[in-house]
Amino acid sequence: MSKPYPPVHYSDYLKLEQLLSAQKLKSDEYGKHAHDEMLFIIVHQTYELWFKQILHELQSVAKMFENYVDEKNIGTAVARLHRITEIQKILIDQLRVLETMTPLDFLDFRDYLVPASGFQSLQFRLVENTLGLKRENRLDFDKQAYHTRLDKGEQKKAQAAEESPSLFDRVEKWLERTPFLEFEKFKFWDSYREAVNIMLSGDRAIITSNPSLTDTDKEKQFKQLDATGADFDALFDSKKHEQLIKEGHRRLSYKALQAALLISLYREEPILHMPYRLITTIVDIDELFTSWRYRHALMVHRMIGMKIGTGGSSGHQYLSATAAQHKIFADFMNLSTFMIPRSELPALPKDVVKNLGFYYSQK
Amino acid sequence: MSKPYPPVHYSDYLKLEQLLSAQKLKSDEYGKHAHDEMLFIIVHQTYELWFKQILHELQSVAKMFENYVDEKNIGTAVARLHRITEIQKILIDQLRVLETMTPLDFLDFRDYLVPASGFQSLQFRLVENTLGLKRENRLDFDKQAYHTRLDKGEQKKAQAAEESPSLFDRVEKWLERTPFLEFEKFKFWDSYREAVNIMLSGDRAIITSNPSLTDTDKEKQFKQLDATGADFDALFDSKKHEQLIKEGHRRLSYKALQAALLISLYREEPILHMPYRLITTIVDIDELFTSWRYRHALMVHRMIGMKIGTGGSSGHQYLSATAAQHKIFADFMNLSTFMIPRSELPALPKDVVKNLGFYYSQK
Amino acid sequence: MSKPYPPVHYSDYLKLEQLLSAQKLKSDEYGKHAHDEMLFIIVHQTYELWFKQILHELQSVAKMFENYVDEKNIGTAVARLHRITEIQKILIDQLRVLETMTPLDFLDFRDYLVPASGFQSLQFRLVENTLGLKRENRLDFDKQAYHTRLDKGEQKKAQAAEESPSLFDRVEKWLERTPFLEFEKFKFWDSYREAVNIMLSGDRAIITSNPSLTDTDKEKQFKQLDATGADFDALFDSKKHEQLIKEGHRRLSYKALQAALLISLYREEPILHMPYRLITTIVDIDELFTSWRYRHALMVHRMIGMKIGTGGSSGHQYLSATAAQHKIFADFMNLSTFMIPRSELPALPKDVVKNLGFYYSQK
Amino acid sequence: MSKPYPPVHYSDYLKLEQLLSAQKLKSDEYGKHAHDEMLFIIVHQTYELWFKQILHELQSVAKMFENYVDEKNIGTAVARLHRITEIQKILIDQLRVLETMTPLDFLDFRDYLVPASGFQSLQFRLVENTLGLKRENRLDFDKQAYHTRLDKGEQKKAQAAEESPSLFDRVEKWLERTPFLEFEKFKFWDSYREAVNIMLSGDRAIITSNPSLTDTDKEKQFKQLDATGADFDALFDSKKHEQLIKEGHRRLSYKALQAALLISLYREEPILHMPYRLITTIVDIDELFTSWRYRHALMVHRMIGMKIGTGGSSGHQYLSATAAQHKIFADFMNLSTFMIPRSELPALPKDVVKNLGFYYSQK
Repeated sequence: MSKPYPPVHYSDYLKLEQLLSAQKLKSDEYGKHAHDEMLFIIVHQTYELWFKQILHELQSVAKMFENYVDEKNIGTAVARLHRITEIQKILIDQLRVLETMTPLDFLDFRDYLVPASGFQSLQFRLVENTLGLKRENRLDFDKQAYHTRLDKGEQKKAQAAEESPSLFDRVEKWLERTPFLEFEKFKFWDSYREAVNIMLSGDRAIITSNPSLTDTDKEKQFKQLDATGADFDALFDSKKHEQLIKEGHRRLSYKALQAALLISLYREEPILHMPYRLITTIVDIDELFTSWRYRHALMVHRMIGMKIGTGGSSGHQYLSATAAQHKIFADFMNLSTFMIPRSELPALPKDVVKNLGFYYSQK
Repeated sequence: MSKPYPPVHYSDYLKLEQLLSAQKLKSDEYGKHAHDEMLFIIVHQTYELWFKQILHELQSVAKMFENYVDEKNIGTAVARLHRITEIQKILIDQLRVLETMTPLDFLDFRDYLVPASGFQSLQFRLVENTLGLKRENRLDFDKQAYHTRLDKGEQKKAQAAEESPSLFDRVEKWLERTPFLEFEKFKFWDSYREAVNIMLSGDRAIITSNPSLTDTDKEKQFKQLDATGADFDALFDSKKHEQLIKEGHRRLSYKALQAALLISLYREEPILHMPYRLITTIVDIDELFTSWRYRHALMVHRMIGMKIGTGGSSGHQYLSATAAQHKIFADFMNLSTFMIPRSELPALPKDVVKNLGFYYSQK
Repeated sequence: MSKPYPPVHYSDYLKLEQLLSAQKLKSDEYGKHAHDEMLFIIVHQTYELWFKQILHELQSVAKMFENYVDEKNIGTAVARLHRITEIQKILIDQLRVLETMTPLDFLDFRDYLVPASGFQSLQFRLVENTLGLKRENRLDFDKQAYHTRLDKGEQKKAQAAEESPSLFDRVEKWLERTPFLEFEKFKFWDSYREAVNIMLSGDRAIITSNPSLTDTDKEKQFKQLDATGADFDALFDSKKHEQLIKEGHRRLSYKALQAALLISLYREEPILHMPYRLITTIVDIDELFTSWRYRHALMVHRMIGMKIGTGGSSGHQYLSATAAQHKIFADFMNLSTFMIPRSELPALPKDVVKNLGFYYSQK
Repeated sequence: MSKPYPPVHYSDYLKLEQLLSAQKLKSDEYGKHAHDEMLFIIVHQTYELWFKQILHELQSVAKMFENYVDEKNIGTAVARLHRITEIQKILIDQLRVLETMTPLDFLDFRDYLVPASGFQSLQFRLVENTLGLKRENRLDFDKQAYHTRLDKGEQKKAQAAEESPSLFDRVEKWLERTPFLEFEKFKFWDSYREAVNIMLSGDRAIITSNPSLTDTDKEKQFKQLDATGADFDALFDSKKHEQLIKEGHRRLSYKALQAALLISLYREEPILHMPYRLITTIVDIDELFTSWRYRHALMVHRMIGMKIGTGGSSGHQYLSATAAQHKIFADFMNLSTFMIPRSELPALPKDVVKNLGFYYSQK
């Protein structure tokens, strides 16, 4: 291991002088040293470093999905997205470190920071936009803050990320290209709809003929069954789907949704295995950001109570609202609504199975 | 270490035969073994074991606060409440284990379990009630489920816990007994109000005389200042406080709130140190249950999508609503709204300081 | 979702009466209630529940690898092994809960438990044996305790697990069956050895011709290069390998080791992707048990200091020694010793690549 | 909240330009972009930021203990040390992020970094030295690396920290000043020794008179009792203690050890409560660094196998040896060796209890 590269020193390599001179306490500047301001700065700096890493991964994955995706690369994409989830766990756990600062200690330097605020983190905006959060889906305050709180150069970068195809867009296109929705004689959507219908009428027959149920019980169960039926009706009607998209209840295109369902239901087939993990890992990322937003809101609640944030936001209530609202891949999370038990799943034709397997095993 | 106690064997001591024979899979009973049902059972059983431990701690602490509380015991109370928080972290992290079960795997046995549901966990109800969640503060569905989903014996126990003084009640009474609110010549509430007023008018003067602010800026800052002032006005008006209690915005009695604020602001004084940690640890518990409820809701969303839960609840949206609604100690979390910087805090008179210190140091 | 299964109640399903009546405090039996004994029991019971779950997963995976392994099943095997790692993280984190019990609190009931000890956990022995820990590789005290501390029935079960093929054995056989070591004209071992030699002599040439190195530097670098060379020589000599096995330095058969290396180096090829994750997840499990043992030893050190454990072991030093010694899959962890950079890896012939890909993509 | 401080922007405050331009990949410099090098840099940079924060806390606490310690400050000291433990948990958990980089991915840029190594982290040396790790207690390789791997300026700083009083030194002095070891008529050491003797001879009598024990059993139990007795003999003999210090088995002065034991045994007394938490939190810190070293060693093992580290260390075996060897506060961890059950503890005289309480409660 002795290539002719010039020797490297740890502190040069990591640019420690530059890194460790970037903590300038405002309280020191004003001659009123507040011990905990160091923590405040360092916690936020580690967040920004992690955001940089998340962007590095996201952008590399988005690029992989630019055009045709080599099956080999899906493994790499999944590994990089999985890395993001491991970082997100740290982002969440780190809040505990910040919570060792008490509200009273925060007051020792809070006034000096106005109106700086996490809303001004360009990198976090880039993460949101690269994942695929759309301006119109942001909460009102956030839409507005987004415009006004960044400086010109930052706005430009945020907007560029907004206008470039996001991970959402690229994964959607990739799903739409799935060749297996209509594959030789196998038409997934028809088979699946039939299976759903058989399942639902079987359920109905069972309720009807069950002697141990009272009429009230039966009525209740029929009602539940009807609700399930209505969910599926909406699924099988592409116009209804378009309507739901217009109303903001769904986002994924009809074809991409079908592909995502196919992958989820037949994930044991070798060629669908990694695509399944891709979808799952994307849901992990969405779930972890949602958790992080919510935990962050709780921390803010605790730190400043009902006060307005340094950046002028209405504080913790706004933040916890973003947790629910700023999910990007909710359609993937909702897939389980439409899953049917393995025992009811239509079997795949032999030649389809062959095509979904490895060359070596099938030849 | 060889007392004449009969020798003990690990598996007898832990009743392993009893413990490890308590996993009976419904899917096995119906002859359709579903591998993941074991996980489902064991995860829920570990939850119930931890709930038992949490109750064990909560009840012992509630008992300590039954009457006069020996200062020595506050340390023990804090240690036991802190233990609850360590358990809660496990409750949250354990969700990751359950999330290794995929929605499709859950469908392999989900039908067998209807209508069993976490709503039927008596112990969790006891935890909520012992902490101090009141029936009227539960979300509607929960109020109802609470009546109907438990069996008779369970209802009785849940009701008994509801009617006994909760941790909230006892801590409130203990706070009200604080001797330091009016102590010799020191009247905390008056001094504190004065300090707040000085702070606010100082802020006003600063804005007025600041040449670098435009009129629009000034207006904006005055508006913010007025909002802060209004918050404090509501605090200093006991009638307003009663009104807020009636409307469900506050719960803690006026006197207890004052004591909690006193403790938070002067926590460095030795005799207030452990009371401060008590309040903080109670907020930790509330925050961690809130986090757990929210994470649980996300997990349910992912597992069953928009479907109705096995227990008939409207699923994840209901669960995430409980996260926000079922906080018990929000008044403690909100204390930071009313904190003022240390530099503005009224100094305590010497003889008060003496009384708040240790005997040995003061004598 | 309304099949004719009889309605199920949460507490019946989870056998809560049985579960929650299994905590009998010795200190209560002797009339000297020790508050923390409940924690001690419940923590150990949750451990045993998790051990049951780990065994459930391990046994199912071992069974899958009994004979020929369908490629589809590798995904399931990896998912189940991954679940074990998520459980192990909980096992480690739970130690923090136990650590909320102080040494003095432990002394309140410690005498009553003699000579019960974690050494008597049959399930933990079964986990070790199912993974593949061999009696002769146990530390001396453990070998002995293993015989004497279990009762007859337990010994029989532990021994049966010891004598059945372990996960180690089955994964080893599966690796040995890999068809790709010699595949058509591609002979992995030869190509790889050649690549190693080219890399090593390239390194040598670079050192020799580097004008900026002093003679001392060169000597040092040659020495390091020789060490690397010696490592590889031992790898390429099957007799040497047998010798290392005899001496207890390696355990995996020569052919299985080659296969594991092949999989690790060419893991991007679709058919090798899941096998690579299998190996990695097994290393995760080994690493997490090692971490757990070590953390457990620290906890014991803290709890009883230099005292002898209730079970008569020499305490924390013994326990931390098992961490290093009781690794089972060290050969997998050591694979990185023999990895060479991607840029030096021999390219696979086209027809081999085809065979390692999906049928659909290649046909 | 609108003081006349100039407005602050998030990215200026956090010096994001400086921070986020400090990641320069060697692989980019050499024109062979290695995707994972970014992760490698960022993980290490977050470590260095956290080390800075740990030093900030450690130095402030060491300063507090410089001379006489105001009781009020012990609360602050404990809070800051506790914060260090929360950071350490992140240091440990972060290893999982680094472990998402596979050995093969590391090889893509590993050669470029030689001989940079974590041994060259000045800040980590400062943390060790500020805590109180002594040069002579370092492992041999570490002693040496310590001299040679840092550059001149770094060496000077490390040495300065080594020569300044460490946290260990200051806490030791503070313990020695405890006024309660001989307090009025109460002589702790005598009372405690007597209690130990009573306990031991009680145990002996019980064994002797126990009819259900065989002679072999009795012999075994006497032997165990003798071992315990010998431990205590060594404790009560100050010359023996000095001897153990000389041999490197103990480090804390005889008087400080007595004080630490007093605090641990009577921690319920108000004035001893925070000192007890101080000791406990220091043990937490030592335990967490030990865990971190061990987990780090496992990660290195996995990443480079049996190879020599980039810094020329013999790799993971060396690193895991530091875990055991580089404990600083082992004497505190060992305190539990000498604890006796509460039921055997000598009761404190009334006037001592009074002095250990609060002024207000006692007056």
